[in-house]
Formats: sequence, structure tokens, C-alpha cells
Amino acid sequence: MKYSPETIAQFNANPLYRAIGIRLDEVADGCARATLTPTTQVCWPSPDQPHGGILFTTMDTTMAFAALSTAARDSGCATVDCNIQYPAPALHGPFVCRAATTHRTGRTVFVRCEIVDALGAPVALGQATFRIIAAKPGQGGAG
Amino acid sequence: MKYSPETIAQFNANPLYRAIGIRLDEVADGCARATLTPTTQVCWPSPDQPHGGILFTTMDTTMAFAALSTAARDSGCATVDCNIQYPAPALHGPFVCRAATTHRTGRTVFVRCEIVDALGAPVALGQATFRIIAAKPGQGGAG
Amino acid sequence: MKYSPETIAQFNANPLYRAIGIRLDEVADGCARATLTPTTQVCWPSPDQPHGGILFTTMDTTMAFAALSTAARDSGCATVDCNIQYPAPALHGPFVCRAATTHRTGRTVFVRCEIVDALGAPVALGQATFRIIAAKPGQGGAG
Amino acid sequence: MKYSPETIAQFNANPLYRAIGIRLDEVADGCARATLTPTTQVCWPSPDQPHGGILFTTMDTTMAFAALSTAARDSGCATVDCNIQYPAPALHGPFVCRAATTHRTGRTVFVRCEIVDALGAPVALGQATFRIIAAKPGQGGAG
Repeated sequence: MKYSPETIAQFNANPLYRAIGIRLDEVADGCARATLTPTTQVCWPSPDQPHGGILFTTMDTTMAFAALSTAARDSGCATVDCNIQYPAPALHGPFVCRAATTHRTGRTVFVRCEIVDALGAPVALGQATFRIIAAKPGQGGAG
Repeated sequence: MKYSPETIAQFNANPLYRAIGIRLDEVADGCARATLTPTTQVCWPSPDQPHGGILFTTMDTTMAFAALSTAARDSGCATVDCNIQYPAPALHGPFVCRAATTHRTGRTVFVRCEIVDALGAPVALGQATFRIIAAKPGQGGAG
Repeated sequence: MKYSPETIAQFNANPLYRAIGIRLDEVADGCARATLTPTTQVCWPSPDQPHGGILFTTMDTTMAFAALSTAARDSGCATVDCNIQYPAPALHGPFVCRAATTHRTGRTVFVRCEIVDALGAPVALGQATFRIIAAKPGQGGAG
Repeated sequence: MKYSPETIAQFNANPLYRAIGIRLDEVADGCARATLTPTTQVCWPSPDQPHGGILFTTMDTTMAFAALSTAARDSGCATVDCNIQYPAPALHGPFVCRAATTHRTGRTVFVRCEIVDALGAPVALGQATFRIIAAKPGQGGAG
């Protein structure tokens, strides 16, 4: 499933993304890409780099969309667990986050993810397990 | 090392904590405790629960303070990697986060952490590895 | 559910445990304990300590039994993912491995585990997610 | 650094690899490849598939060689932590394990790894952190 620009724009208007500086760029067929241009308030304790939890949040939500793109429309999903590595300080934004599903079995989806800085160097690597939640009327989203 | 109430109050004034709703409660001798009362903007996509990345951020920063409390004053630290499990939805806040170091070898510190909801049920469990960064004049913090 | 000494003895006769030096000691109500007395062949590359993968194997199988003890008799289970930390070299055996489930939701079980050396110091810490597999006639086991 | 066929043959003679069925195939410039043809004794509890701990052991040792190939000759290394996912049962061997370093900073090396079955489908995915240990006379190896 590929998300339309309208659907992506709708997700990008959410308050969490605006508070942090996340923009979802593309979601299609088990893959997703987002850009993090961190807001000032999430650059702490170093004023020049986003907190590691903000990188994680970017990764988690991008991976969730990658997982959701393998599911029926309006499904939701929940992160079961996630592992993140921080190979280097995140100094040179904006940061690009790419996630790709590696396998799906039943409602369980395995996803991998990388965040690179503006020079293309990795600043975070992750792998996570998600559970797809069956669609309910009027719901759906990337937790 | 035990952090004074003044030091803790100073950390609690930082913009990231205020944007999310984190309050550091106690840091002493390899342990730390914080409370997450999530702000409205970080409760997305479900309006009644904080995003998983916000739970992670709370965990990461609490664990960092637990690690820092084993180091010389004004040291900094960096998360090398972290694993988080989400056993249940985080529905009933405020959420209490407790972190404890399990071992330190050289500058590498191993830490474990749990977040429980207002009923005492676990909503997130983590284990992470940190690297202590030697103090520089005028610096120090929990990344 | 508590495993009888006869059931435990039966599991302990399996070829994997004998090749490695694992002995299951107790399984009851979401918890399990095992002892690793590593055989010579699994102590490599250091002749005086078990390979990290052997510690992992001990942890994985002990956690699986902890998970299985929460399920119907003759259920099986599969490891979805596992994170392991090695805080210190595993020099002083035998090693005692203790696992405890932290939460179960549907067929997904969250488990934590520690391995300590003969002096009581931690040499491995883990957290894992398991899926319970419905019992089939004549089967069951801890993967 | 690229390992010579003689060096690889020497490592392949070790008792752990023979007990399990691991064969190191290639080590060069931050990458390593190994093949697991599991012995009968490590296929438990399912007689037709290697225990998850055996897949982990294969992954851990292959990643360690990938890490070591970035270090000075005769260095050793230690696994700090590792995360493994099992997307599908490991039914169709032999299994090919490929590891690649993603970043090195000081003595810390970040590595990723996949094990695929004979059909090319992933059965295990991992990411780990290693610490390089300075060479001592007459030593070195992949823990």
C-alpha cells in the first residue's frame, strides 16, 4: 500500500511531529522515510543536537508506518519492542530516517531502520517488532 | 553521589522535560527516579496515551542520570544502545520511571529501567549501555 | 504451573543441554532457574570461559521455560526477539540463570533474565519476547 | 584487514564450531560470512531446526570477526550487547550468516548481521556492540 500525499500531509499535521520536528516523507510497500529537523526545545542537554529519545521517536514512528503499509487500510499498530544503537553524535541535521520491513508473519512485523545525518553518516540504527491491530471504524495510526 | 534538590530542580527546568512532561525526582548512588505526566502534544496517535518514543525518552534520560550518579561530578554520558519492551498500553498516568545501574566497568555503565502506570503495572522495560564522558569545564548532562 | 522433578529430569536429558552443560533446576509460575556448568568444548576462544553464545543459549532456554510455565500444558513457544548485555567476563562458574516473566498479553510473554557467576556477580542480563504456540498432541518444548 | 585461508582454517578447527556446525568462510574489511550446518545435538527441541541460541552463537561469532577485521592483528574483542530477532523458524539449512560493521568509534564497533536459510529467507537479524581489546602476545580471538 502506498500513502497518498494527502494522507501523509494529514499525518504531518499532528502535534507530536510539530513539537519535535518530524516530517513523514513517503510510505509505500513496507518502507517509509521521514526527516527530522529538530526543534530547539528537543535539543537538550546539548543545544546543537536532538536528544537520543527524539531520534528514537523518529525511528519508532517511521518504522510503524513501514509496518502499517503492509496492513489493511485503517489498521493500527503497536511497538512490541525496539533496539536502538547510537554510533555517533547527531550533530549535523536535518536527519533522514529510512525504515524497511524485513518480514511479516501473521500480525507480527519485523522492521529495520537507519537515521543518517546531512553528511550521510549513521547516527542511529534500530530493529523493532510491531503488532498490527485490526482496523476499527474511524481509527488507525502509527504508535 | 546523590543529587541535591537544587541540582534536580535545575535539570527539571530544561525545555525538553517541559515539552514532554518529565520531572526528575531523585538521583543517588546508581539509581534514579522520574515521573512522566505527559503533555497533550505528546499524546499521539492515541489522545489518551503518550507516544512510545516519549516513554523511551523518559527511560533514556532517567537511566542516564542513574549512570551519571556513578561518575565524577560534571561528567556527561552518551547512550551507546538501548532496548525497550512495551508490555501494555500506557493508559493510566502519571507514570513512574525507575532506573538502576547493574554494573560499571571502566567508562561503560549497564543500566536497567521500568516504567509503571498509576496502578503499578509495567508499561515499559528497558536495558541500556552508557559511556561516561569525562567532565569538561562548565558542562555535564544526561543525554 | 509448576514442573515436577520428573518433567525437569526429562528435559535435562536432551542432547543440547548435555553438549553445553545446562541443567534446568526449577520451573514454576512464570519463573525458571537453570545452572550452566560449561563443557570444555564450549569454552572458546578463552579456555576458561563459555562463549557468549552459550550464555545466551542458557538464558534463552531458561526464559522459554519461564514463559511456558504461564501456558497450558504441552504448549510450545518461540523466541520473537531477545536482547543480551554482557557486563563482565564469565570467569567463575558454575553460572546460575534466573528468568521471570514480567507480563503476558494474549500469546505474547515478556521475560527478563540474569546470569550470575559463582560469586554472585552478573555476567549476562537479558530481556526477551516470546510467543506461545498452542499445544499439539505429543509435542511441547522450550525453543 | 583480510584473513588468509590459512587463518580461517585455523579458526574453523576450534571445538565450539565443530560441536555446533559453524564454518567461517570469509573475513575482510569490516565484513564476515559464515555457514551454519547444524549438528544433530544442537537441533532441539525441534529435531529439524537449530536452537535459537545456536543461531545467536553463529551470529555473535561472525559479527565478532567482522569487528576484529577493523582492528590491529591479534586484537581480541568482547560483545557488549546484542539484539536478535527471529522472524521465521530456521527449517531449511544450511544457513548463511553475513555480518557488516556499520561504524567504529574508538574501541567500540557497531555491527549488523543477518542469517538466511537455504531459500534466502531471513531467519535471524541482529545488531550488536563490541569492544576491541588490545592485542596481547600469543592471543586474539572472536568471543
